[in-house]
Amino acid sequence: MRPSHLAINPIDATVRFDLDGKHHGFLRLPCSRDTSAWGSILIPITVVRNGSGPTALLTGANHGDEYEGPIALQGLAHDLDPHDVTGRIIIVPYMNLPAFHAARRTSPLDGKNLNRSFPGAPDGSPTEKIADYFERILLPMADVVLDFHSGGKTLDFIPFAAAHLLDDQDQQAACIAAMEAFNAPYSMILREIDAVGMYDTAAEAAGKVFVSTELGGGGTSTARSARIARRGAENMLRHAGILAGDLAPQPSMHIDTTGAGSFHLSETGGMIEPLVDLGEEVSEGDTLARIWSPHRTGGAPEFVKARSSGILAARHFPGLISPGDCLAVVAAAGSCAKSP
Amino acid sequence: MRPSHLAINPIDATVRFDLDGKHHGFLRLPCSRDTSAWGSILIPITVVRNGSGPTALLTGANHGDEYEGPIALQGLAHDLDPHDVTGRIIIVPYMNLPAFHAARRTSPLDGKNLNRSFPGAPDGSPTEKIADYFERILLPMADVVLDFHSGGKTLDFIPFAAAHLLDDQDQQAACIAAMEAFNAPYSMILREIDAVGMYDTAAEAAGKVFVSTELGGGGTSTARSARIARRGAENMLRHAGILAGDLAPQPSMHIDTTGAGSFHLSETGGMIEPLVDLGEEVSEGDTLARIWSPHRTGGAPEFVKARSSGILAARHFPGLISPGDCLAVVAAAGSCAKSP
Amino acid sequence: MRPSHLAINPIDATVRFDLDGKHHGFLRLPCSRDTSAWGSILIPITVVRNGSGPTALLTGANHGDEYEGPIALQGLAHDLDPHDVTGRIIIVPYMNLPAFHAARRTSPLDGKNLNRSFPGAPDGSPTEKIADYFERILLPMADVVLDFHSGGKTLDFIPFAAAHLLDDQDQQAACIAAMEAFNAPYSMILREIDAVGMYDTAAEAAGKVFVSTELGGGGTSTARSARIARRGAENMLRHAGILAGDLAPQPSMHIDTTGAGSFHLSETGGMIEPLVDLGEEVSEGDTLARIWSPHRTGGAPEFVKARSSGILAARHFPGLISPGDCLAVVAAAGSCAKSP
Amino acid sequence: MRPSHLAINPIDATVRFDLDGKHHGFLRLPCSRDTSAWGSILIPITVVRNGSGPTALLTGANHGDEYEGPIALQGLAHDLDPHDVTGRIIIVPYMNLPAFHAARRTSPLDGKNLNRSFPGAPDGSPTEKIADYFERILLPMADVVLDFHSGGKTLDFIPFAAAHLLDDQDQQAACIAAMEAFNAPYSMILREIDAVGMYDTAAEAAGKVFVSTELGGGGTSTARSARIARRGAENMLRHAGILAGDLAPQPSMHIDTTGAGSFHLSETGGMIEPLVDLGEEVSEGDTLARIWSPHRTGGAPEFVKARSSGILAARHFPGLISPGDCLAVVAAAGSCAKSP
Amino acid sequence: MRPSHLAINPIDATVRFDLDGKHHGFLRLPCSRDTSAWGSILIPITVVRNGSGPTALLTGANHGDEYEGPIALQGLAHDLDPHDVTGRIIIVPYMNLPAFHAARRTSPLDGKNLNRSFPGAPDGSPTEKIADYFERILLPMADVVLDFHSGGKTLDFIPFAAAHLLDDQDQQAACIAAMEAFNAPYSMILREIDAVGMYDTAAEAAGKVFVSTELGGGGTSTARSARIARRGAENMLRHAGILAGDLAPQPSMHIDTTGAGSFHLSETGGMIEPLVDLGEEVSEGDTLARIWSPHRTGGAPEFVKARSSGILAARHFPGLISPGDCLAVVAAAGSCAKSP
Amino acid sequence: MRPSHLAINPIDATVRFDLDGKHHGFLRLPCSRDTSAWGSILIPITVVRNGSGPTALLTGANHGDEYEGPIALQGLAHDLDPHDVTGRIIIVPYMNLPAFHAARRTSPLDGKNLNRSFPGAPDGSPTEKIADYFERILLPMADVVLDFHSGGKTLDFIPFAAAHLLDDQDQQAACIAAMEAFNAPYSMILREIDAVGMYDTAAEAAGKVFVSTELGGGGTSTARSARIARRGAENMLRHAGILAGDLAPQPSMHIDTTGAGSFHLSETGGMIEPLVDLGEEVSEGDTLARIWSPHRTGGAPEFVKARSSGILAARHFPGLISPGDCLAVVAAAGSCAKSP
Repeated sequence: MRPSHLAINPIDATVRFDLDGKHHGFLRLPCSRDTSAWGSILIPITVVRNGSGPTALLTGANHGDEYEGPIALQGLAHDLDPHDVTGRIIIVPYMNLPAFHAARRTSPLDGKNLNRSFPGAPDGSPTEKIADYFERILLPMADVVLDFHSGGKTLDFIPFAAAHLLDDQDQQAACIAAMEAFNAPYSMILREIDAVGMYDTAAEAAGKVFVSTELGGGGTSTARSARIARRGAENMLRHAGILAGDLAPQPSMHIDTTGAGSFHLSETGGMIEPLVDLGEEVSEGDTLARIWSPHRTGGAPEFVKARSSGILAARHFPGLISPGDCLAVVAAAGSCAKSP
Repeated sequence: MRPSHLAINPIDATVRFDLDGKHHGFLRLPCSRDTSAWGSILIPITVVRNGSGPTALLTGANHGDEYEGPIALQGLAHDLDPHDVTGRIIIVPYMNLPAFHAARRTSPLDGKNLNRSFPGAPDGSPTEKIADYFERILLPMADVVLDFHSGGKTLDFIPFAAAHLLDDQDQQAACIAAMEAFNAPYSMILREIDAVGMYDTAAEAAGKVFVSTELGGGGTSTARSARIARRGAENMLRHAGILAGDLAPQPSMHIDTTGAGSFHLSETGGMIEPLVDLGEEVSEGDTLARIWSPHRTGGAPEFVKARSSGILAARHFPGLISPGDCLAVVAAAGSCAKSP
Repeated sequence: MRPSHLAINPIDATVRFDLDGKHHGFLRLPCSRDTSAWGSILIPITVVRNGSGPTALLTGANHGDEYEGPIALQGLAHDLDPHDVTGRIIIVPYMNLPAFHAARRTSPLDGKNLNRSFPGAPDGSPTEKIADYFERILLPMADVVLDFHSGGKTLDFIPFAAAHLLDDQDQQAACIAAMEAFNAPYSMILREIDAVGMYDTAAEAAGKVFVSTELGGGGTSTARSARIARRGAENMLRHAGILAGDLAPQPSMHIDTTGAGSFHLSETGGMIEPLVDLGEEVSEGDTLARIWSPHRTGGAPEFVKARSSGILAARHFPGLISPGDCLAVVAAAGSCAKSP
Repeated sequence: MRPSHLAINPIDATVRFDLDGKHHGFLRLPCSRDTSAWGSILIPITVVRNGSGPTALLTGANHGDEYEGPIALQGLAHDLDPHDVTGRIIIVPYMNLPAFHAARRTSPLDGKNLNRSFPGAPDGSPTEKIADYFERILLPMADVVLDFHSGGKTLDFIPFAAAHLLDDQDQQAACIAAMEAFNAPYSMILREIDAVGMYDTAAEAAGKVFVSTELGGGGTSTARSARIARRGAENMLRHAGILAGDLAPQPSMHIDTTGAGSFHLSETGGMIEPLVDLGEEVSEGDTLARIWSPHRTGGAPEFVKARSSGILAARHFPGLISPGDCLAVVAAAGSCAKSP
Repeated sequence: MRPSHLAINPIDATVRFDLDGKHHGFLRLPCSRDTSAWGSILIPITVVRNGSGPTALLTGANHGDEYEGPIALQGLAHDLDPHDVTGRIIIVPYMNLPAFHAARRTSPLDGKNLNRSFPGAPDGSPTEKIADYFERILLPMADVVLDFHSGGKTLDFIPFAAAHLLDDQDQQAACIAAMEAFNAPYSMILREIDAVGMYDTAAEAAGKVFVSTELGGGGTSTARSARIARRGAENMLRHAGILAGDLAPQPSMHIDTTGAGSFHLSETGGMIEPLVDLGEEVSEGDTLARIWSPHRTGGAPEFVKARSSGILAARHFPGLISPGDCLAVVAAAGSCAKSP
Repeated sequence: MRPSHLAINPIDATVRFDLDGKHHGFLRLPCSRDTSAWGSILIPITVVRNGSGPTALLTGANHGDEYEGPIALQGLAHDLDPHDVTGRIIIVPYMNLPAFHAARRTSPLDGKNLNRSFPGAPDGSPTEKIADYFERILLPMADVVLDFHSGGKTLDFIPFAAAHLLDDQDQQAACIAAMEAFNAPYSMILREIDAVGMYDTAAEAAGKVFVSTELGGGGTSTARSARIARRGAENMLRHAGILAGDLAPQPSMHIDTTGAGSFHLSETGGMIEPLVDLGEEVSEGDTLARIWSPHRTGGAPEFVKARSSGILAARHFPGLISPGDCLAVVAAAGSCAKSP
């Protein structure tokens, strides 16, 4: 492996991280390309700091077609009063800015999924440079890390916050506590199977308190889902002692998708007729959806049956489906107590 | 004008329209193109006939990214028993099939919007040939016409059926009665301002009882919206005396979008933060949404205020908006009596 | 209809048509476009003239992915000695030059199929301007017209020349005689069903002796098919008394594709397994091909059975097929006598 | 021809044309498309009015990759003080706005060149609707019309204003006077050969005083060319008595490109080596450029010789050239007196 | 080098390899992308097993535009009766499934040529993951390996099977024996010059008996070439003792393309006029093809002369050629004895 | 790191480097791709050699949209007489040929910028293979290296030659002397900040005398800029003692862009109104340009102020600008003495 870790990341921040007050600026990523020989990508960043205290790192648009995080973070960056802060809040609403402008999951510059590109490389493609900058510059500054996700254009989720099962029990407990503080309508604790390349893994490996979310999807947002995002971010900041104010917890249902029968992949392509909506209860053997061939009428549809019981937690969003697409995720539903 | 109306439409139906029973086949549209020198487009069609009686013509995917109609019609075509029918039902679930396969509003073959292409032309582009075939072959066979729409990938609607104000009072009354029989959660009577080229106009000008719908959007469907479509189609067929069975009407709220302050167009581009969700009440002056520039943090958003009071009936779906896009439609809400 | 026929066609020939000798030049078609604000399309043309006598108009690349015609005509334009000519030969090897450069059936400039664009329009799109120029300038100069076709990238043919059944018996006899003089391995007399917009129709309506061909396909040519094209063109010129030299006729089999069971269209998409090759005999009910789904193994293929007996005259070329594509044409085989 | 002229143009102006003061708004063009089902194109417009007097109509970006006009007109719209105005000034800096946003000569929505789309059609494509709106709504309001052009991405010009030879001697004299008032470094009087579909023709046929320009090119602008545009527009407004202030004429050279040897079209493709720069003198027979094949070294280049003497007035801009492209225009240079 | 070989390949087989009987399923390759956030690629696989014995691994569509292999293997997977088998047959008809669906040589997901991607990487791009799965999971299970190739869309071949010269004489003898058992009309023994990244190299380095083929091309297949593929596969399985039944060898001509004058590359672009067809004999100095410029008529063509004597074994398929394309391969023809 | 340096580069030169005389040929780069399964890229090369002496390596089109270098080098390759040479001149006018044919900065084959791809890899993508061939084969042959650059489609420069500050004082002095011999109108000595991957770095690390240039831009060339390139190349060859003839130095102004205030990046997108042209003097605080929003009229533009004093040495070329683009470079102007 070439010694990328010795190279200097070319991204340059136009804001200082060590000044009190609220500062808006850019992470400037030089990017020579056909449309701009000496161009740069200007990723907006806001740093709010007031004295000493912990640092929170808040990010959205890790995938460029997910909107709840960017909305909550643009609002926070605009509204936050440094006097309400103890410590520091670093806000990057559009982590993969080129993907966000293209309304795509992945970057149009290199085709890469930022959340599979960690630890990145300072001399790699634009997405890899962003990953490296977070890995080596921003994550080390942080104590608490919140990364917003939603389903993007091809998936739709019931709104939940998530924390991972970790080897370090103390770290795991801190993550779960932060997730419960976020207090989304649903909460999920999971062990990532294929964690290679994820920002989550990078943050957790660095010992940070890390929370992620899935708050809707379809390439849109709603007033409700945007409110969940904003409230969750403020809750986490309050829980961390960085933002003034009290938590006002509401009920959150624990869900679990680690069972063998949770994921439902389609082996057929066609038009989906959904028979169950997000959040509805299903029993093993229920028909979740029928898939019709759009090439003829009169033929029988394929039936997709629930392989487990629970609630419908995620679904394929577009009206058409291809073989191999994830059609549905059925979550086992746990207790629904008020988070702390 | 060239005498297109004298030319023969090249579309050939592989089913007979005058035989009792249920027949599945195709409207075969010859289409020589780069990818198939002697190719055809095979538009699925089902004809269900039992003795004499009125004819219903049911269509979906007039716009190719709208799914409730195709789902309801594929199901009907599969499930209908000719013994339950008196007269004839003609079902074309994918009116603009090339658009449907491309998951686009318009046809990838000619870029045309079928619902702005009537009366069409037998020697025109593929979309124009389809329009001409409906104009001159299928509409004349029909007494009752139902055309399913939803918002497609860029709009989202509360579910409603609609009938037009017409010069012929008897025809108008019949259309409104059919719309009320459809019995969607919302019902709308409107006068089309720019009716040129619409299938609606073609059907009404031919004296047909015509109903259209908007049943959701975003380029997806839900179990709920698909059920509304299927139930509405069966209701209309029962109301017309074509399908056996009774109507079981439920409440439907009358809405009206003809007021000057209904439509809200964005003059700004950026990321939408919605503050009101579909179906919620708004008062004139309320902020419907904020629009943020994704080029920087810290700047103030644009506010889009409601120009009238009512309920949010339609909204821009994608998370990003461009200048000129329709951001929201606020409908005046009327009585909500059980139809009919 | 707008009075296009009164407008002046903007195409300008850089060669004279009324000078003895051999002249190479261009049909210059002005075409302002994004890539060239004041650009032109330069369609190569050769005029060979020697004294008075009939005029032959020879064309290739009416469809841009067919090569036998352009090869034969480039060779003729290069090799012809005016002293061997009595009258005039006008050669346009690349009738739809933009389509030829793009290796496409249709023009990349306007998406149009030149052979469905007649009579064209002098103020229309580039393809329509070319059609109009042939309709109003070149066809009136001609007595004998030969237009080369092959199957292009999506079809493959046994090599044949064709003449149409016409209302004018004398004209029909002259066309058949010219087709037989061409002396391809196969010969076909047909009545065009959907003749609207074809160059054939334009030439025949103008009273010309018209022959067309299908000489192979797949977007390639072979030494054999190129030789058939060159020899056929020379034969026709000799038959018309324009080119010196004798005909040396070889056997040509008459084939007929007007029967109801000739054309075989696929209603299924997938991978084709051909069971019969071009030129082989088939009996009604024989399996012509099997179509496999490429989405799984183990499923049964669809069988496409011959609907008539004869020889396989045309086939779908690409390895994958879509619903509506023409899979095969079975021709009834007639007598095989030495032409004329 | 269908009676388009009876249809209502769907474009709606959000500004009033009959109010004193300065008003900024939009021409709202409804445009339903895949990316916005109920979208509109918002073409910026400014109306400055002060009492009665003549009306000037000033436009830029008729072609979307030409910048001097839009720059001058944005500046004018911003800077103009209604008190300095007598009559009315209508400013549309981005006539073909979709083309301008795409930085293309033609519209990405329909591929059309606005300056070949007049008189347009109210029920046509977006570009045709814009043409119709100018033809039937804006041109009738105007007395004096100035339409800015430059060479766009593929041509480069010495900066000149132009007026046409017209049948009406009085109108012609008024146009020439206005052109001389514009007072560009070069001035040209010409007879348009192929005037069909041009905005120029529409304005002149309506009896207006019309001036157009070519002020640079390459898809860029310079400080110098932008100044020429701004000064010329102000000069013309002063000349028309609409804007207060005096003209300060500078020398302008009359040029003429109507001679047979002015236009030089390349019959070869390759890399251009220019030997003469814009504005330099050339003599008939001089080599204007050499064209090298980029497929090999060592081969001899093609020489393009000047077919007439004069100055180099226009040139192909991109480094590569295709057959049929206009390589150079040599203008006969006339007197260079101080305009007027 | 990063320790990819320690990582787990994410591909999951839905069939067992150790069960008797015939099992159809998928190699499921997780692939998160813009069009499917949690999507997978489902590569069909069939395993036929009956007791103990050797294992054959049969693959097609290593390049996605080659059809003989997929046709033969879909047929085999469908038709094989486990009772006729001794040992195990693993069939993957569409090795690079995304390329096959796109009808492209390379994968549309990452642009990679699977046959230049070995040994692959479990954490690489989709094509690299497929390569790694074959390298580390499937190849180790196999004793005999057959990989079908044809010319694809840009080349056409006389049908031959091939074995490589290897350092291990025993392995080489086994490969040649298997190639001769395949018994294609032509047979070739070669030493790969640039073997880096090939599946062939991976299989041979693992000590397997390996045979590959070139059985046609052009992006199509014929009844004849498909029969050669199916018969060859069965022959090899019989030769290996895995499939019951006898070999019925036919004549096969040995050919050799290792001579210096075999390969003919074009230094010119244009339209090819072929003068020799596949399988025909040529003598050194014969003209194989002429290349015409499609920019003008009357110019002389380029002549491509044979650099050696033999038969034409491969040719450029499309009608147009670019500089650097392989125009022809002339093979020295050896003895033509009945394979064993 | 994988031992790429041990692998053999697949590029094959069809010319000998060790023969006296002038030899034109190709660097043949095998490149299997969808459009040519066995295709190669033929990069033209000329070698001129006469006896012993130093070797100069001259290159253009390192970026494919820069023309001065290719023009000068095609001319030199054509015109050079070996008798005027002492030693050897290796000329590669189109270093990144695929990028040149596409008129793009980067290669259409792999998206890579050649000047960020050094040292390359023999088993990498096509651009990486080219870099490796220069790194390991051509650079070691050279004593003096000249690499031509211009601004490409998105930047425009005053014409200058450049040499780098280097650790080795002797090498630096030799480079500066060669740059001064080139004798462009402007001369620049700089220290590259981010030199990773550049050809410059590769050449200098190998101890060569290296000069690069920026001679214009915009994706075009002019007679003047092409003359500067040709004259500079000859001057450098004469200075190195390779080409006969005397230098005739002209004044060259030294410029310096290493000051903090030289580079001006736009944080805003829109239409640029330039207020200063290339080569003009500016003072700190002057407005260089105004940026207008093309979404409305009447709004105030953004002002971009000069951050230092000097002359405008580079500017953004296209009429529209995006956030992050380099808008202008102001160079401190030094002495302007006649080079040597």
